[in-house]
Amino acid sequence: MAAHPKKIIIDTDPGVDDAMAIYLALRSPEVEVIGLTTIYGNVYTTLATRNALHLLEVAGRTDIPVAEGSHVTITKGTKLRIADFVHGVDGLGNQNFPPPKGKPIEQSAAAFLVEQANLHPGKVTVVALGPLTNIALAIQLDPAFVKNIGQIVLLGGAFSVNGNVNPAAEANIFGDPDAADIVFTSGADVIAVGINVTHQVVLTDADRDKLVQSNGKFAQYLAKILDVYFSYHHEVYNTRGVYLHDPTAFLAAVDPSLMTYIEGVVRVQTTGITRGLTIFYNKQKRFAEETEWSDKPTVKVAVTVDAPTVVKLLMERLMES
Amino acid sequence: MAAHPKKIIIDTDPGVDDAMAIYLALRSPEVEVIGLTTIYGNVYTTLATRNALHLLEVAGRTDIPVAEGSHVTITKGTKLRIADFVHGVDGLGNQNFPPPKGKPIEQSAAAFLVEQANLHPGKVTVVALGPLTNIALAIQLDPAFVKNIGQIVLLGGAFSVNGNVNPAAEANIFGDPDAADIVFTSGADVIAVGINVTHQVVLTDADRDKLVQSNGKFAQYLAKILDVYFSYHHEVYNTRGVYLHDPTAFLAAVDPSLMTYIEGVVRVQTTGITRGLTIFYNKQKRFAEETEWSDKPTVKVAVTVDAPTVVKLLMERLMES
Repeated sequence: MAAHPKKIIIDTDPGVDDAMAIYLALRSPEVEVIGLTTIYGNVYTTLATRNALHLLEVAGRTDIPVAEGSHVTITKGTKLRIADFVHGVDGLGNQNFPPPKGKPIEQSAAAFLVEQANLHPGKVTVVALGPLTNIALAIQLDPAFVKNIGQIVLLGGAFSVNGNVNPAAEANIFGDPDAADIVFTSGADVIAVGINVTHQVVLTDADRDKLVQSNGKFAQYLAKILDVYFSYHHEVYNTRGVYLHDPTAFLAAVDPSLMTYIEGVVRVQTTGITRGLTIFYNKQKRFAEETEWSDKPTVKVAVTVDAPTVVKLLMERLMES
Repeated sequence: MAAHPKKIIIDTDPGVDDAMAIYLALRSPEVEVIGLTTIYGNVYTTLATRNALHLLEVAGRTDIPVAEGSHVTITKGTKLRIADFVHGVDGLGNQNFPPPKGKPIEQSAAAFLVEQANLHPGKVTVVALGPLTNIALAIQLDPAFVKNIGQIVLLGGAFSVNGNVNPAAEANIFGDPDAADIVFTSGADVIAVGINVTHQVVLTDADRDKLVQSNGKFAQYLAKILDVYFSYHHEVYNTRGVYLHDPTAFLAAVDPSLMTYIEGVVRVQTTGITRGLTIFYNKQKRFAEETEWSDKPTVKVAVTVDAPTVVKLLMERLMES
């Protein structure tokens, strides 16, 4: 265990790859998970909360608080897009797990995020694995949040590639484009890991076989829930494996040097057929007129990833007994 | 002169690089320019018409008809963006040329396009160098236009790169996004040459010196109007030369093998901060839901260009005396 592990809050919509990321986090000595906050995305928020509590109980880590997040997008009224066809109707591979014994804390996700950022200024990293509603609400709740939070590492966006909801949009940004635009332009220290990067990181069918055969507690659990997620990838993407979206974003928080980044302004389209699209601008090209990217704070966007090391770290840590 | 030169209509908003493309066309034995249609963009439509007539008079080609196009975007009411800061307030390098003697024909640009496509089914290529209002109006005027027109080669879009109006949008598509979306999804045989390609084709300061020193009639004329265009590029892009947008698109119509293409569906964002953005989808990736790209006809989008040959052809032909 590192002398001063990095304090991490995981904002999550579990979700099969969320489960992988959470268990990877619990086996990562570089970090201390100080809370989970929940959000809709792979499932509705109520089920995300239930699954977060369930995953912590399986891990014997009920000491970690779960704060329930928003049930709706930040502008309200937007129909939610729930990716249960990727993760199973229960979000965890259709396993009919018993309901968890625990309950979420009384605080909302946004209030918990603000409180923890104030308690440990500059020391808390948020790893945001779903739509960014809770993070945007925290920014609106406390103007000092963007200064007090250490870093926001988010899984989201499709930079110079097609999306995965449609040709324009990636699922997490599509889930709440208005919230995403608030986060990207907030001035916080943001790292965005988009599907242009996570589609480079594949856990192969052979890797899964190794996980299944290992004695690791987490590997054994994951072996049960991976089927639906693998089947979806086999069918839709023709990959012999699955994309490691959430674990890859988490590892960017643990060790940013696993990726390379470009720095610039990201804005999100919030209406029309490209709703949820992320457009990056590196501030080098000049334009004749002021643009919607002018004078906005920059973020870092991941462009390359050491995929073999990401997969190796995931496998090793999940297979520990 | 080729036995059966390709019949070409140039839809144009002259414009310094429009002037280059028009004069290049008049010196290209592979094509017969059967008309110019005018549009706003680099200048307002009235001035575009005046400049088109002027350029043909300088060339001694008043046999070529000029049909005036739309003065407004297809949805009306949208404020026009006029790029006179790139081309000079007169569109032709602030040279105070005398007004032309000739007049445009009585037909509108759209009516002329429809008529010519009907007269020569499958034999007319439109080279569209400005916003796509006239082409979209022709499509609306005559449902058979998309079948009767041979090919539409358009200068427009920014595919997987930042735009030149703002980080999202290229100028011609930004000029009338609704019209562009109509053209891209019309089912016509469309080749799109975007700034991802034309920014690879630079006429250098040294090339200009050669043009200026040549005895070619067109080279001599262009030598007068190039200053403003070069100054803009030096200042804004830090290039030692200018981008050959319009001549490059024209040469794609003459010899498509100067470029390579990807084929897929292009949709245009018509609202919000990324208004005018072009999003390409190659139809290979599957999505869980129907998308706005599903079941739409494909177009060809240029991705690479033989830039040295484009520059060589332009120089040689413009320097002919």
